[in-house]
Amino acid sequence: MTTYTNFLKQYLDYVQDNPFKGAPDELYDPANYILQLGGKRVRPLLVLLGYNLIANDVTKALPLANAVEVFHNFTLMHDDIMDNADVRRGEPTVHVKWNPNIAILSGDLMLVKAYQVLNNLNTDLETKNQIIDGFGKMAEAVCVGQQFDMNFETQESVTESDYLSMIEGKTSVLLAYSLEAGGQLAGAEKMITDALYQYGLNIGLAFQVMDDYLDTFGDQASFGKRIGGDILENKKTLLWIEARKRANPNQLKTLNQWYEQTIDSQEKIDAVTLLFRTLEVDKYAEHIMNQFSVKASKYLDLIREHHNTEMIESLASDLMKRSK
Amino acid sequence: MTTYTNFLKQYLDYVQDNPFKGAPDELYDPANYILQLGGKRVRPLLVLLGYNLIANDVTKALPLANAVEVFHNFTLMHDDIMDNADVRRGEPTVHVKWNPNIAILSGDLMLVKAYQVLNNLNTDLETKNQIIDGFGKMAEAVCVGQQFDMNFETQESVTESDYLSMIEGKTSVLLAYSLEAGGQLAGAEKMITDALYQYGLNIGLAFQVMDDYLDTFGDQASFGKRIGGDILENKKTLLWIEARKRANPNQLKTLNQWYEQTIDSQEKIDAVTLLFRTLEVDKYAEHIMNQFSVKASKYLDLIREHHNTEMIESLASDLMKRSK
Repeated sequence: MTTYTNFLKQYLDYVQDNPFKGAPDELYDPANYILQLGGKRVRPLLVLLGYNLIANDVTKALPLANAVEVFHNFTLMHDDIMDNADVRRGEPTVHVKWNPNIAILSGDLMLVKAYQVLNNLNTDLETKNQIIDGFGKMAEAVCVGQQFDMNFETQESVTESDYLSMIEGKTSVLLAYSLEAGGQLAGAEKMITDALYQYGLNIGLAFQVMDDYLDTFGDQASFGKRIGGDILENKKTLLWIEARKRANPNQLKTLNQWYEQTIDSQEKIDAVTLLFRTLEVDKYAEHIMNQFSVKASKYLDLIREHHNTEMIESLASDLMKRSK
Repeated sequence: MTTYTNFLKQYLDYVQDNPFKGAPDELYDPANYILQLGGKRVRPLLVLLGYNLIANDVTKALPLANAVEVFHNFTLMHDDIMDNADVRRGEPTVHVKWNPNIAILSGDLMLVKAYQVLNNLNTDLETKNQIIDGFGKMAEAVCVGQQFDMNFETQESVTESDYLSMIEGKTSVLLAYSLEAGGQLAGAEKMITDALYQYGLNIGLAFQVMDDYLDTFGDQASFGKRIGGDILENKKTLLWIEARKRANPNQLKTLNQWYEQTIDSQEKIDAVTLLFRTLEVDKYAEHIMNQFSVKASKYLDLIREHHNTEMIESLASDLMKRSK
């Protein structure tokens, strides 16, 4: 059976065979280091799957797949500085292993390199122009999402709409773009690439809401991160936003009191989780997640009328499976 | 008389009329702030002058001119974080006025925006592709130059060739690219755009060596910065590199002793300056500067056979005049 794991293998071989080369080492090594830390490689896979809807041999799409992953890792390298994060995928972050200046500059280089790959894609100039245009819009949206996320930390209140815009920028637009650009490179019709974009956007929103949900209500063993992490960090997630809407004055006071504290306390996690359950914001998050999934499905149906979407569905379902 | 000051005015009006727009403010305001701090606007002028060699009305080249200035200011915003610089053009730097995270992210946005302008240039796709390709190579070289500059701080020794590579990346390639891309946008022949690039590269190297020279041997009133600043910072400039070559063991010991100290001392400036004069590294710097100027002139002669280079010469001479 052909599954997307073949594509993953092709991509991983490509990364292995095409490291950044240049001097000085302090500039190029961090880029190769972060790219080789691993991860699920969802974004390059989406590029290849978008491409594969139309064209069989995905070899031609590997540089585009890598450009997207290089861009993603550029954002991780800079985000890690901003978030003061010491560890990524179990290894020291670039600004810790080297230093923040190197992480800034090496990240800048990665963004330049991603563009350079797009501009050298082996396709007609019209398609290239389109792919670069979408990339720029996506990259701007990612910056906007990250800035909103940073602003939320000091904002008193965040609306659901603010929150959804933020996760759309931080997570979804890149997933959407990956599928869309893969389709564009393969020469898919606009109707299809638009649907790929919308599918990716909505599935991305569903994933991110699920991630928030699992951070509080998930199973420790399968989630990977510590359950309750968002609560400890007083994160303004969808759960928190909806809880504040639903809370009576006493419940609101309790929630606010916990969120004024920055302590590593299981008691805090338990108390806030209980409050969230009492207010049934877990059900609300499931409802929102479901809404996005349904919307995503409609776009997938549209694509399925013309192309075989089995592998895309298989990847999406595997990503969803890590939960529940 | 038509001089390049008309172009400067056109460019400044363009910047005024085309600020970055978007939310959140924390992302877009710093980009507009740094762009409006002023400066000589040499790079956008070079774009317009390169363009004007072929085409009269430079209106079409204004977006390209701005993309180059936006890129330049992106590098300044990130460099200021790396160099821990508090002041730029008499105003607080972005990471001081806002914070380092905002300076990282807003800089990232500027790089994306510069590319977006290039990809939307009102020209044929072939030219666009060429301009973006040159931009990427230039941007990579700038990152390389900045990393070498940072490395030099902790390196025991730096060769003249290392040093020249570093200033080529940090300063010259962007000047070279500005002229070249302006010519490309106007549809100049490759022979001309190549010569523009080489002219810009060599004039840039001459400027930078002059800057080093003036930092030690310049006139306080016209130089702008404190004379002796490089010496106080123990910078590994061409003067220092050549002095170490020429020094006898005693002189070398004296120079090394001064360069082991990080004190704000006029005595140090005077002693090292005297040593530099004794070793005639001032004359050596003039010689190197002259070599680059002569090389630049040859490329200019080549261009002058086909086009009117008066305004380019006028700008270059005004930039050189700030000295001596």
